[in-house]
Amino acid sequence: MNNKKLKIAITGSTGYTGGELYRLLLQHPAVTVTAVTSEKSAGQPITTIFPHLAGLTELLCEPLDPDIIAKKADFVFLALPHVMAQDAVYRFHVLGKKIVDLSADYRLSDPAVYEQWYEHSHRYPELLKIAVYGLPELHREKIKKSALIANPGCYPTGAILGLAPIIKEGWIDPKSIIIDSKSGVSGAGRSSSLAYHYPEVNEGLMAYKIGTHRHTPEIEQELSALSGGQVTISFTPHLIPMNRGILTTIYASVLKQADSGRVHALYQKFYRSEPFVRVLPRDQFPNVRNVRSANFCDIGVTVDSRTGRVVVVTAIDNLVKGAAGQAIQNMNLMMGFDEIAGLKCAGLFP
Amino acid sequence: MNNKKLKIAITGSTGYTGGELYRLLLQHPAVTVTAVTSEKSAGQPITTIFPHLAGLTELLCEPLDPDIIAKKADFVFLALPHVMAQDAVYRFHVLGKKIVDLSADYRLSDPAVYEQWYEHSHRYPELLKIAVYGLPELHREKIKKSALIANPGCYPTGAILGLAPIIKEGWIDPKSIIIDSKSGVSGAGRSSSLAYHYPEVNEGLMAYKIGTHRHTPEIEQELSALSGGQVTISFTPHLIPMNRGILTTIYASVLKQADSGRVHALYQKFYRSEPFVRVLPRDQFPNVRNVRSANFCDIGVTVDSRTGRVVVVTAIDNLVKGAAGQAIQNMNLMMGFDEIAGLKCAGLFP
Amino acid sequence: MNNKKLKIAITGSTGYTGGELYRLLLQHPAVTVTAVTSEKSAGQPITTIFPHLAGLTELLCEPLDPDIIAKKADFVFLALPHVMAQDAVYRFHVLGKKIVDLSADYRLSDPAVYEQWYEHSHRYPELLKIAVYGLPELHREKIKKSALIANPGCYPTGAILGLAPIIKEGWIDPKSIIIDSKSGVSGAGRSSSLAYHYPEVNEGLMAYKIGTHRHTPEIEQELSALSGGQVTISFTPHLIPMNRGILTTIYASVLKQADSGRVHALYQKFYRSEPFVRVLPRDQFPNVRNVRSANFCDIGVTVDSRTGRVVVVTAIDNLVKGAAGQAIQNMNLMMGFDEIAGLKCAGLFP
Amino acid sequence: MNNKKLKIAITGSTGYTGGELYRLLLQHPAVTVTAVTSEKSAGQPITTIFPHLAGLTELLCEPLDPDIIAKKADFVFLALPHVMAQDAVYRFHVLGKKIVDLSADYRLSDPAVYEQWYEHSHRYPELLKIAVYGLPELHREKIKKSALIANPGCYPTGAILGLAPIIKEGWIDPKSIIIDSKSGVSGAGRSSSLAYHYPEVNEGLMAYKIGTHRHTPEIEQELSALSGGQVTISFTPHLIPMNRGILTTIYASVLKQADSGRVHALYQKFYRSEPFVRVLPRDQFPNVRNVRSANFCDIGVTVDSRTGRVVVVTAIDNLVKGAAGQAIQNMNLMMGFDEIAGLKCAGLFP
Repeated sequence: MNNKKLKIAITGSTGYTGGELYRLLLQHPAVTVTAVTSEKSAGQPITTIFPHLAGLTELLCEPLDPDIIAKKADFVFLALPHVMAQDAVYRFHVLGKKIVDLSADYRLSDPAVYEQWYEHSHRYPELLKIAVYGLPELHREKIKKSALIANPGCYPTGAILGLAPIIKEGWIDPKSIIIDSKSGVSGAGRSSSLAYHYPEVNEGLMAYKIGTHRHTPEIEQELSALSGGQVTISFTPHLIPMNRGILTTIYASVLKQADSGRVHALYQKFYRSEPFVRVLPRDQFPNVRNVRSANFCDIGVTVDSRTGRVVVVTAIDNLVKGAAGQAIQNMNLMMGFDEIAGLKCAGLFP
Repeated sequence: MNNKKLKIAITGSTGYTGGELYRLLLQHPAVTVTAVTSEKSAGQPITTIFPHLAGLTELLCEPLDPDIIAKKADFVFLALPHVMAQDAVYRFHVLGKKIVDLSADYRLSDPAVYEQWYEHSHRYPELLKIAVYGLPELHREKIKKSALIANPGCYPTGAILGLAPIIKEGWIDPKSIIIDSKSGVSGAGRSSSLAYHYPEVNEGLMAYKIGTHRHTPEIEQELSALSGGQVTISFTPHLIPMNRGILTTIYASVLKQADSGRVHALYQKFYRSEPFVRVLPRDQFPNVRNVRSANFCDIGVTVDSRTGRVVVVTAIDNLVKGAAGQAIQNMNLMMGFDEIAGLKCAGLFP
Repeated sequence: MNNKKLKIAITGSTGYTGGELYRLLLQHPAVTVTAVTSEKSAGQPITTIFPHLAGLTELLCEPLDPDIIAKKADFVFLALPHVMAQDAVYRFHVLGKKIVDLSADYRLSDPAVYEQWYEHSHRYPELLKIAVYGLPELHREKIKKSALIANPGCYPTGAILGLAPIIKEGWIDPKSIIIDSKSGVSGAGRSSSLAYHYPEVNEGLMAYKIGTHRHTPEIEQELSALSGGQVTISFTPHLIPMNRGILTTIYASVLKQADSGRVHALYQKFYRSEPFVRVLPRDQFPNVRNVRSANFCDIGVTVDSRTGRVVVVTAIDNLVKGAAGQAIQNMNLMMGFDEIAGLKCAGLFP
Repeated sequence: MNNKKLKIAITGSTGYTGGELYRLLLQHPAVTVTAVTSEKSAGQPITTIFPHLAGLTELLCEPLDPDIIAKKADFVFLALPHVMAQDAVYRFHVLGKKIVDLSADYRLSDPAVYEQWYEHSHRYPELLKIAVYGLPELHREKIKKSALIANPGCYPTGAILGLAPIIKEGWIDPKSIIIDSKSGVSGAGRSSSLAYHYPEVNEGLMAYKIGTHRHTPEIEQELSALSGGQVTISFTPHLIPMNRGILTTIYASVLKQADSGRVHALYQKFYRSEPFVRVLPRDQFPNVRNVRSANFCDIGVTVDSRTGRVVVVTAIDNLVKGAAGQAIQNMNLMMGFDEIAGLKCAGLFP
């Protein structure tokens, strides 16, 4: 039975995203994980790193050697740090594997922009050209035909989905966009440091990397494509004392007479066929608790007539629609599976 | 396709247990929820009460009228407050429905004990006689043949599973048992009160109902049956600032020369075929984070030779193995489904 | 010894603000609390409502009868719900008492604006004229001479202090102001409701009252006075899973060539003599954890040259600088005490 | 004015205990901190390490050189890791300084027991003989005359205070004692590691070091002295997702006919003159939230007649009565200050 299933490798499997990929893939009907890599934990059972998986897998971690991994798996999820993913993607690509890369390395189509924000040059500009930005709501058809998907960042997923309908329609001033995001701590990864030591974070709240966060160019790239001109945004991420979730509050000046009713209708229409975007009823706004562990992006939208601004609020689980869930949604599209396979679950509440 | 599926009703569907039943049943391959009841929310979509279910169901809440519900469903989960469940169980039973009752009303086989702890008489003592205490690890064969299951309380599940191997074997002094439990706040239900107002609970910690909690007689009933004599325990529950999870720390005096190795081996043997009990490797102890959203009970055990006491620690998700998950495990047994159907998922971490 | 101390009454003493007033006043060298009122808890010791005060006071709650309270106290803090405070303030004022009113009833100088946002008429417009908005950093001299202070709201305190230097100087476009605030749950008060039930809030995050929060006109009133013209703002509050603290992130378009250095210098100069405002070093931004339990407002500021926007972040403890601490600071000014008396404490970290 | 104040040095000042000592000493009327040491942060302002102290001190950290520190300070708090404190205490002692050592190095009077549990020999057994265990409720008179105080561990403070009255009176079986403690995360110190990384701890709960925690011999030493015979205890610490606080639940078999009323009266009598122990009214039990930031130990006690066991629950703030607050209480006694000076503050709630 498992012989017919798609064989999957997860590289960089010991971070939170790797663990979440494994959790979600375990409930996918058409795949089986056959390799997990970790340099640091090579030889150890993955359940030593992730005791919540105990009883569900007996895989051992192994070093990341693409030639060896390629013999064990036909589809590769890369959850490596940026810069490190450049080579790994290249090698798996040359070996003919289908890839979803969860790093930032193949998201920015312009290598100069990559170099500016990530302070490293890109060694595979030709590969950049064929990589597709894996936001299904915008690029579904391209994703279906692609062998290399750059999975969007967590913040960009919530920001772009929140703005796509209205910026595409030209109803807002693209110079006026302000994106204020609030993320749970798992977004910072699983490497311990004083900054994420429990008593430092709990009962605390701060903004960070104001105007300088690396997800900025990714958001601008996609919004620019939608608007048809260069878009520059203000983006401020914040660290919230919770495990999961990103709430993004977006402000922009409305250009024409678009009141709350019209804007809400626009969003409903834009996303009416999307399996994982829930536009909430008018005057309702999302809460990250309702998307925890689920692949949904919940959206609420209103126009404040006092100020002439639209306010959009989006909620995602940063590890699911913001990472592993979206990666699997991309895999489903690339493989011709049902797009919702393994993903159409309710969130965990409370 | 859905026509062939088992039709399920959830009564008292607007509490946390009701919501969790719904979430889990949505991923069960052989059932479909056809009715949800709530007096207070009758006429409203269940997704108004539980926005995390939006997009996954369009059911409306209806009042609890057993005659009407019985026409819509063949299997009933009752998630009503105790005392209230007495009648509802009776009526569905008379109507020939299979029932898992998640209240306390049918857990205590002796109506006098029920009356003593719940301060109400039991109106259906004859039904008590046929109700089976739904802890599959102890009563699997009886459950398979039963039409009325009393689903165990959350605390008793962790406490009884933690003691069953060693008390059955007679290795501990049954007079020496102390059970110190720590629960997340969802265990208190979804009715708001000052006691569970966020700022009152967060960054707080307390014991409550010391020696008087109503789960005490349920634990004693099962331990007495296992030991073959009357067992009286000290039981102290505590309220922990987290949403889900119960950690139970159990102390008892070891009667014979049973060191950590022998006791650990006993637990491994006792639970080796159990799909939802994970006895951890020696010198490892459970953390509720590893069972969050999952139906597992994780167990660690050691003997402290300085004091001659065994210390057992168990972890469950109070809403899953401690309520809704165990209820579905019971349904699977009652209906002849695979016992793990819809339940063999990894926990959510982090 | 206590005879020489200023006698204080706290009305509405059983909410979080009332409790915090009591905690802070206990460490004030020149005052003594002689009366606490609560209709609901009349006759009970205040320590029944606030066990953390046990051993420090033996006062009993009493009903709010201004004639009786006025005989026991010479200074009154009113921590009543809005609308209810209108009369109470009037009666204590007529009785010749000095008052700090922590409700919203006397903050808006224009009764029409009050009526528009609070949906009640103001019965004492003449009293509104003499009430002073109690933000010492802006109105210190008026406060010193006043007998009736309207203590600012929690959100307005962080928002106004964050904008005062730059709007007064005319360096930003007053039409471009966006204020995105994040508050701990104690800001919602001590009345339990499902919305603030622990499992509903914990691991959750949402925006609320977008564009319609009642603190909006208060912020606009003060910013308009500083700018010399009508200012209309976008204001969005968010609920954060923590007990205390407000972080406010403010965006505005810079009108002239004001880079980060110049703007930072402006803030340092503006607040250099303020005992409770800490302008952080350049490129540092505040965290609410550093002001927990303290009367400080921490401020960080930068200019994003890519977008031409200034971003200001402020942090306060909503119950201290955002309520009780500021009220005591006002009392100190009104009574000629040292402004920092009882307030110059370090925050509680962690 | 400051010239007349006692000059204080804090060594190892960059951990949570060091920071808390500083916070509390800032509000002490008779002392001034003149030196803070940290090897790692030497030369940096202490406010760089603890931004919550900004505006309240301008001290720079310096290396720990006892000869230099001794010229700046007359009283030394040592907040160094165990083993490291051995020498530092010795050197300050030789230099004639009064010392409160917050490490474990001078708590165990028997150097063999120290070596057994801490796996290092004790190089200053003669100094051990003059060190006094600094629990004022038990050793007040000795503390007053001592120049070297070993400040109790956080867990032992709550455990010993919870048992002292009843074990001294001989009302319990000393072989039956079980101590189940639950601690906030600040107890683990400020060194980051994966174990205390926010998403690993939040929404988690576990027991650790079951039967092997190093605070065990310290508890046994004091209980043995009170009981007049060797006492061996079961002690299990747990990690709770909150910043501060220890709740300790204690079980023991009552030897004679001591019901709840008599036992409660015994506790009231034993602690009636203690400024920092609050025995709660009968049938009430403590919550750590009521002692947060305060030097109180709250105690509740009951006898469960079903099992013949006394259950005692105590609550402290691990950084205050469990560390820095108790250290200052000891200093007050050693210096002849009012015992409550700088400490008689209400806790922070919420």
